Amino acid sequence: MNLLDSTCNALEQVRLNRPLVHNITNYVVMNFTANALLAVGASPVMAHAREEVEDMVRLAGALVINIGTLSAPWIESMFKAGRAAAASSVPIVLDPVGSGATRFRTETAKRMLEELPVSVVRGNASEIISLGGAAGGARGVDSIHSADDARAAAEHLARSSSVVVAVTGVEDLVTDGVRTVRIGNGHALMGRVTGTGCAASALCAAFCAVERDAFTAVTGALLTFGIAGELAAAPGPRPGTFQVLLLDALDEIDRALLTRHARIGV
Amino acid sequence: MNLLDSTCNALEQVRLNRPLVHNITNYVVMNFTANALLAVGASPVMAHAREEVEDMVRLAGALVINIGTLSAPWIESMFKAGRAAAASSVPIVLDPVGSGATRFRTETAKRMLEELPVSVVRGNASEIISLGGAAGGARGVDSIHSADDARAAAEHLARSSSVVVAVTGVEDLVTDGVRTVRIGNGHALMGRVTGTGCAASALCAAFCAVERDAFTAVTGALLTFGIAGELAAAPGPRPGTFQVLLLDALDEIDRALLTRHARIGV
Amino acid sequence: MNLLDSTCNALEQVRLNRPLVHNITNYVVMNFTANALLAVGASPVMAHAREEVEDMVRLAGALVINIGTLSAPWIESMFKAGRAAAASSVPIVLDPVGSGATRFRTETAKRMLEELPVSVVRGNASEIISLGGAAGGARGVDSIHSADDARAAAEHLARSSSVVVAVTGVEDLVTDGVRTVRIGNGHALMGRVTGTGCAASALCAAFCAVERDAFTAVTGALLTFGIAGELAAAPGPRPGTFQVLLLDALDEIDRALLTRHARIGV
Repeated sequence: MNLLDSTCNALEQVRLNRPLVHNITNYVVMNFTANALLAVGASPVMAHAREEVEDMVRLAGALVINIGTLSAPWIESMFKAGRAAAASSVPIVLDPVGSGATRFRTETAKRMLEELPVSVVRGNASEIISLGGAAGGARGVDSIHSADDARAAAEHLARSSSVVVAVTGVEDLVTDGVRTVRIGNGHALMGRVTGTGCAASALCAAFCAVERDAFTAVTGALLTFGIAGELAAAPGPRPGTFQVLLLDALDEIDRALLTRHARIGV
Repeated sequence: MNLLDSTCNALEQVRLNRPLVHNITNYVVMNFTANALLAVGASPVMAHAREEVEDMVRLAGALVINIGTLSAPWIESMFKAGRAAAASSVPIVLDPVGSGATRFRTETAKRMLEELPVSVVRGNASEIISLGGAAGGARGVDSIHSADDARAAAEHLARSSSVVVAVTGVEDLVTDGVRTVRIGNGHALMGRVTGTGCAASALCAAFCAVERDAFTAVTGALLTFGIAGELAAAPGPRPGTFQVLLLDALDEIDRALLTRHARIGV
Repeated sequence: MNLLDSTCNALEQVRLNRPLVHNITNYVVMNFTANALLAVGASPVMAHAREEVEDMVRLAGALVINIGTLSAPWIESMFKAGRAAAASSVPIVLDPVGSGATRFRTETAKRMLEELPVSVVRGNASEIISLGGAAGGARGVDSIHSADDARAAAEHLARSSSVVVAVTGVEDLVTDGVRTVRIGNGHALMGRVTGTGCAASALCAAFCAVERDAFTAVTGALLTFGIAGELAAAPGPRPGTFQVLLLDALDEIDRALLTRHARIGV
């Protein structure tokens, strides 16, 4: 089965099974992430208290750990949730927001990769370079590198940490260290709305909840999200309207739209 | 006066008096909740620090306690605010988000019902069953039960805790343990946008601030919200657009629209 | 160069340089603030952990400190970030949300003005009166005073604390204690959407990052925001749609629109 077929199947499985996605994510994007998951057909829950993250993640089909507004108590809960996820074979998606911008974020993200059985890391080029490359560097939470710059770092990170790595940007790249695929879908407006990267990570989690092969799941999620971005951008909206239409497009997207628009290469 | 008349009067009182509603609520829905309160005509404030919740709640017409992203320091503030609200006769609306999903949430919600003079509990069927029923159970923050399943639990909870209980879902149910009313308004899209339940709770608080009878206030708030949902859904929007139109409808709704669309039964 | 010219230049500089704006702000408005900064052309980052605020603010062109959902750990980080900003000559914009409503907020805002080299304070009339006037008073986070009521307080605060003070409301007022300007742009709908004041403060920061004279920068930011509000209100939207169109207008606004609509007086 090719990646387009498996994407269509995974999307349909998300809608049939409505997997619960447990998010420990940043304050900025919680609302948009929850709405993106609902729009695509999944069921979001946000919970970060150390008293309950283990109970919650056991109910979930996947766990998202997003370090966008990190603090010490949240890190403790992220590790607790991650260990409980591991014990229950719940796949973990790590979104290392701002890794490379501060030592606190870079070191936290690296420690998660060392201590937790993360399945997927999704970041922009600067974030992935900070984790898998030589000298990193970033400015805030926006990338100063292209996906191509990050390819070597992504493949190195995938192999050294046994994870699927996704680098999103003008073009997306997904690699497990052996297989590497490029996704040509997406739109520049996605960089003009906060939380699109975080929503992409949450969709990766939703797809991992229904598709055991993380490489296939992540490719499917990013293909779905990129095409949704194109559909939302089609009327030529400005960023406020685009954000609304992006949620609409995640609700609308289906096998026919995926098939018509997919641009996957190697 | 019937429930429709009193709903219209309460809505008009909200707009005249612009009651301050103090929300100690979850991170996911804070923005949408504040905008829903503003749209309907109330004045929202969010404050959670133990240093100020007592000062803030004394200024307010009602207090919302919502456990959607709970943690220990917030629980402390919720109790502090709740006790200060009680001392100043400020009505308390409890939204037990995810009660039944984790012990932490269920036990916190139960302790609030025991220790605070809560006026209103609004939840989905699973949440209400976890508080008022026999064996509960939930999956994340979405209900796996219908409002009908929850009727006995709601009536039991209303009587045992001396609260008005609202169960929202496809159909809404409001009970004080003696009177029980059903509201047929609402739309399935409300379940496709995060925070609609939380916004409903906040509207209950706004109405409690202007209408002393909590049963009447809650019925009015849910009737208003359900009809707003129908107005927003009328153009056939997808979920992103629906969320925007729902705020518009809360601004638009008035006596004429309430009268035309209300579906209340017993 | 007049204030309109310098506004146009500053807006163009924001779009050319994409200044990183570090926000330590409240939970309610983080998403909208980030999107407003992105829409106008700046680059937002939110970070509040004491472990990283110093590293982050050194990368930034300006720092926003907004006390809308204050708590003790955040106050500690705000001071840490503020001192690091000072050491790196990064301008600080203070948004004293709810100052006057609780002692906790009023005292925290006053202490910030004493201990940090704040460049700009932007608030509504009640907030500014609580900091610069005689007897204050507020109700929640919404003003009970007009900008005119606050003029004396603003000018006093500007001189005593050596800051530029902006009072926003039906009419905006900007003063450095010597120069005072009034901005007639804006729309009543801006008061019906949560976070417009906070977004205005963030825009002040973005403009301060590219324009060294804070009085000029703040006038430019509020002129830009006020006109964006008018553009968004032009189709006669209700508040949900208005919020979306406001982001669109921040993306659309340019020299021609500024020139056509600006209403500045003294």
